[in-house]
Amino acid sequence: MNSSDAVVLAVDVGGTTMKGAVVTVGGETVVTATRPTPATDIVRALVDLLEHLAAEAATRGLSVESAGVVTPGMVDEETGTVLFASNLNWRDVPLLAQLRSLLPFPIAVGHDVRAAGLAEKLLGAARGSENYVHIPIGTGVAAALVSSGRTITGALGATGEFGHIPVIAGGEPCVCGQNGCLEVYASGGGVARRYVAAGGEALSTRQIVAQLGVDPIADEVWGDAVRVLAQGLTIMTLLLDPDIIVLGGGFSQAGAALLDPLRVGLANGLAWRDAPRVVQSQLGSEAGRIGASVLAMQVAGHEARLAEWAVAH
Amino acid sequence: MNSSDAVVLAVDVGGTTMKGAVVTVGGETVVTATRPTPATDIVRALVDLLEHLAAEAATRGLSVESAGVVTPGMVDEETGTVLFASNLNWRDVPLLAQLRSLLPFPIAVGHDVRAAGLAEKLLGAARGSENYVHIPIGTGVAAALVSSGRTITGALGATGEFGHIPVIAGGEPCVCGQNGCLEVYASGGGVARRYVAAGGEALSTRQIVAQLGVDPIADEVWGDAVRVLAQGLTIMTLLLDPDIIVLGGGFSQAGAALLDPLRVGLANGLAWRDAPRVVQSQLGSEAGRIGASVLAMQVAGHEARLAEWAVAH
Repeated sequence: MNSSDAVVLAVDVGGTTMKGAVVTVGGETVVTATRPTPATDIVRALVDLLEHLAAEAATRGLSVESAGVVTPGMVDEETGTVLFASNLNWRDVPLLAQLRSLLPFPIAVGHDVRAAGLAEKLLGAARGSENYVHIPIGTGVAAALVSSGRTITGALGATGEFGHIPVIAGGEPCVCGQNGCLEVYASGGGVARRYVAAGGEALSTRQIVAQLGVDPIADEVWGDAVRVLAQGLTIMTLLLDPDIIVLGGGFSQAGAALLDPLRVGLANGLAWRDAPRVVQSQLGSEAGRIGASVLAMQVAGHEARLAEWAVAH
Repeated sequence: MNSSDAVVLAVDVGGTTMKGAVVTVGGETVVTATRPTPATDIVRALVDLLEHLAAEAATRGLSVESAGVVTPGMVDEETGTVLFASNLNWRDVPLLAQLRSLLPFPIAVGHDVRAAGLAEKLLGAARGSENYVHIPIGTGVAAALVSSGRTITGALGATGEFGHIPVIAGGEPCVCGQNGCLEVYASGGGVARRYVAAGGEALSTRQIVAQLGVDPIADEVWGDAVRVLAQGLTIMTLLLDPDIIVLGGGFSQAGAALLDPLRVGLANGLAWRDAPRVVQSQLGSEAGRIGASVLAMQVAGHEARLAEWAVAH
């Protein structure tokens, strides 16, 4: 078999959908498949999707070398155990062991946000950086932290809970049970909720941003979001000293309306040092799935070939 | 020469004093010497101290293998350059190159707080942990961050500026030029200043803690300090997921008056995950100097022998 016929499978398991793909070891995506995440028996549905992807590969004469699966929550990447994932209603799920017992190829299990961070480094906005932070901002907020080229995973696989850092003492309540968390103010979910609470209609982040300058409620809610996010990025910079901060997720689509005031706020928050660069993600919602394929390449022993992916993009 | 005659030199350069020692490669401290840090020509005074330590070693028939020097500020440990150290009035000082040109043995230059963190892991309160945070709290506050056994150094050698993370939006001014920094409230300097500002006398942290329960100003200022520090440790835990947080410096001498309410505050701040252990430093003000000797052991190729130090302690 020619190595150009070798492929890896990748699935990004989210609370709403499971995004899968078949990717050649040279970095070409040949099949994608997205399925809804069921309320129960998620592992069964995940195995179905992986088997579907493997069958799609087989019909094309492609040989599956490995699979990479990424999930949200607290993930112990060494044992492949998901300690806790509220979106999936999982607690202590030995995902890697379960998948290994059901599938015939090597498998890697990782954390969605950390894997997305790897993808942004390999192919996206953090290319070339050894010290960066990747912050996807959607309904909620998370972060992947990379220092000296290595992902910071922590004692329990629970690093980067940036959305829940307490930034406003005695602030508004968060779904997590605390008050004043960053994502209460600075997330798609937070901005939409606070816009309605202040008397506005139910609008998306995009729609609220479109009202800036003409709608005082939009100005106020967005101003709070930018101010709190700048405070969070200041904290991140002072603790971790990244040279680049990549903002992802739907929220980052706001572009200049977000990035311009955010850069000013971050620079003002750093009295005695320069601010790191703050840029928008290049891979967007594909970053998690691409990250899963990177993990699959690593578990298959094809890490060296990832250099080709960087060139191809 | 017997390897038991081999020693390393260690100096912890602080804003007030330079603490030096001669330490055998087996981990025994045979000489210590502390000198005031001069206002100018600090490198000259540092070289004098190292030469004095080397002479003390020579009179005992001991052979100097290397020296380790740690300093505060932003330190690029690869090049041995101190990018900025306000206490020493240094900017872009090529310390390693200067010391190498003046001294005949291998030299390592490191960051005082990160080196102290290494010492706490080897010999102190973080023994056995691969994911910990060491936070010396004195006049100001800093932090050494270790993940998967590796010190997080960042893009500019400027990680761990925990004392300056903004925790109270629009809070009291800090010497750094910002407002609402953690150390404005939760440090030896901050507590003493706020106690006076609230109408109290000029007292030390120790004296203020002794007034708890009988002096409402002490209760208020200390309560603020604990609350802000708990908020900071919550942020640290959510971002970095350590399994142990080691508190050092004079402030941590408060013992239970600090640790008991702090542990409660941290647990309350972490809605969905367990808190890491919070403990007091075991090495205290010696941690930086011991860390410098660890760096000296590494540069001399004696890293394997550090295992003996752990046993000896």
